[in-house]
Amino acid sequence: MKDIFQGVSAKVEGGAPCCDWVGDGGSGHYVKMVHNGIEYGDMQLICEAYNILKNGLGLSADEMHQVFADWNQGELDSFLIEITRDILGFKDTDGGPLVDKILDTAGQKGTGKWTVIDSANLAQPVTLIAEAVFSRCVSAMKEERVKAARKLKGPKPLLSAAKNPKARQAFIEDIKSALYASKIVSYAQGYMLMRAAAAEYGWKLNYGGIALMWRGGCIIRSRFLGKIKEAYDTNPKLANLLLDDYFRAEIKKCQKGWRNVVASAAKKGIPVPAFSTALAFFDQYRSATLPANLLQAQRDYFGAHTYERVDKPRGQFFHTNWTGRGGNVSSSTYNA
Amino acid sequence: MKDIFQGVSAKVEGGAPCCDWVGDGGSGHYVKMVHNGIEYGDMQLICEAYNILKNGLGLSADEMHQVFADWNQGELDSFLIEITRDILGFKDTDGGPLVDKILDTAGQKGTGKWTVIDSANLAQPVTLIAEAVFSRCVSAMKEERVKAARKLKGPKPLLSAAKNPKARQAFIEDIKSALYASKIVSYAQGYMLMRAAAAEYGWKLNYGGIALMWRGGCIIRSRFLGKIKEAYDTNPKLANLLLDDYFRAEIKKCQKGWRNVVASAAKKGIPVPAFSTALAFFDQYRSATLPANLLQAQRDYFGAHTYERVDKPRGQFFHTNWTGRGGNVSSSTYNA
Repeated sequence: MKDIFQGVSAKVEGGAPCCDWVGDGGSGHYVKMVHNGIEYGDMQLICEAYNILKNGLGLSADEMHQVFADWNQGELDSFLIEITRDILGFKDTDGGPLVDKILDTAGQKGTGKWTVIDSANLAQPVTLIAEAVFSRCVSAMKEERVKAARKLKGPKPLLSAAKNPKARQAFIEDIKSALYASKIVSYAQGYMLMRAAAAEYGWKLNYGGIALMWRGGCIIRSRFLGKIKEAYDTNPKLANLLLDDYFRAEIKKCQKGWRNVVASAAKKGIPVPAFSTALAFFDQYRSATLPANLLQAQRDYFGAHTYERVDKPRGQFFHTNWTGRGGNVSSSTYNA
Repeated sequence: MKDIFQGVSAKVEGGAPCCDWVGDGGSGHYVKMVHNGIEYGDMQLICEAYNILKNGLGLSADEMHQVFADWNQGELDSFLIEITRDILGFKDTDGGPLVDKILDTAGQKGTGKWTVIDSANLAQPVTLIAEAVFSRCVSAMKEERVKAARKLKGPKPLLSAAKNPKARQAFIEDIKSALYASKIVSYAQGYMLMRAAAAEYGWKLNYGGIALMWRGGCIIRSRFLGKIKEAYDTNPKLANLLLDDYFRAEIKKCQKGWRNVVASAAKKGIPVPAFSTALAFFDQYRSATLPANLLQAQRDYFGAHTYERVDKPRGQFFHTNWTGRGGNVSSSTYNA
């Protein structure tokens, strides 16, 4: 777990440890990998907020500096929000914001990618980190984007809320809600991955302890991680962070603003892949029924992959002769 | 390429071949893998359309059967739309729609996952297939979803357009636009992956020929693939399908409806991960400037990963001492 502190000085909060024994068989490396994946997600979320503040609401770097300073006082209090505040306030030698001079092509070292690959292998829907990794890939295609921008036109990004101080302030609050709720989803997904990895590789992970360790000096350190620790203290067997009472209430508060931001960004052509995948995941996860019944019907139609039925016990598989050619028996049961 | 026809009888259209020599060194297997990934995407897109038609507009299976029958007459004409039409019209022994009896838990065999993994390894943003694969993972978490549905509440899905026949018909057109535009993005992403793989593994791929082959009997066979063939015939060096004149014009026509569907679904709590990632990708790809400048500033702040500048040639890397501790020189150049 040594390089969990890369480039960051350890900050011990309230006497909590900033490093800890995670477990056997590479689990420390794995948890560090997930940490880095989550870091990719957090950074992408901040970039999406910044993009809407800048292009949707027309805020200056100084105004955004103030927004992030405000956000760093509340639930979003974290190292990454804090340095974003500082970056937005940093002037270049000509007196203008330095951030405006930086080329928009993100690099990556591979840990985000590894997280995505292991998510796919363990069938865990870690969609937000995936979108964050892929967003870095698109950012790296700078020359192609510059050319495409000349040919592919969309709506003007400025929101009507930009013109009215009260509406503008309300929309800034909505962006904060989108960022916060999406962040909760991302951590919930990261914890799903760690839980699946623990089952797959035979580890015993202390989920609250991991949150505490990440709070003590990591790039993703935040007040928020203390709440995750509390969630696992309350219920060490918590199936999903989204079901914890605290996070459930927080998302409830954020929902309206979050939905408004995703909808507005879609209408105005502002890309919000992480905000929207977080929302889509939340809406899938809370769906007792998803449209995968149709998908299973398709798979059975073209490949005889069979399906289960809502009115039969799990583990009974059915196949239908959908075309009617060769008889129209609709449920020939076999166990696969 | 043998099992490209799994479960489907080959249908030779206009004398076009339904199988072909793809190239050396495993490229045939690779192209088959991408085909299957695209198939995951197409199926997810149809499921999202179905979900909105059903829960957003309140359509019955018979009404949806008619919608898919109509769609199969136009640009969306394809094997998967056709079988969806048939599935929605298929009755169970009790006379009700069989699709309603099928459990909403999707299986998978691995080829979608492999496509995602290789996309991550080759730094190609194949976001739509990734969302499709992850959506299957969420669908498989049936018991967890049923429990979560009791605790996580959202808006009611029924759209106001559901109550007015004219608005309802207009929204059905918008859903068609969302499906069609998202499909174009998905194929553009799949072709980006094949192009990157060809460069990485030293293959010469005939992109138009691949489209033609896929049209001749595959699960993703469609009228659409003929247009892809034409695009590569016109310009064999086409950088991206989105830049082809035909597809550009098609997306232009679809944009308004597509944005309306993604925005409405976000507001009404209907999950559309594939529609929305396609839109986010489109909006990223056509952005000359993305917010990754802030991300590079963050990486430079906490890890001294350096950045390039918009006012300097590419390949010159800069580092800033952001905290001001140790001097406030803002651009110490070095080449990395």
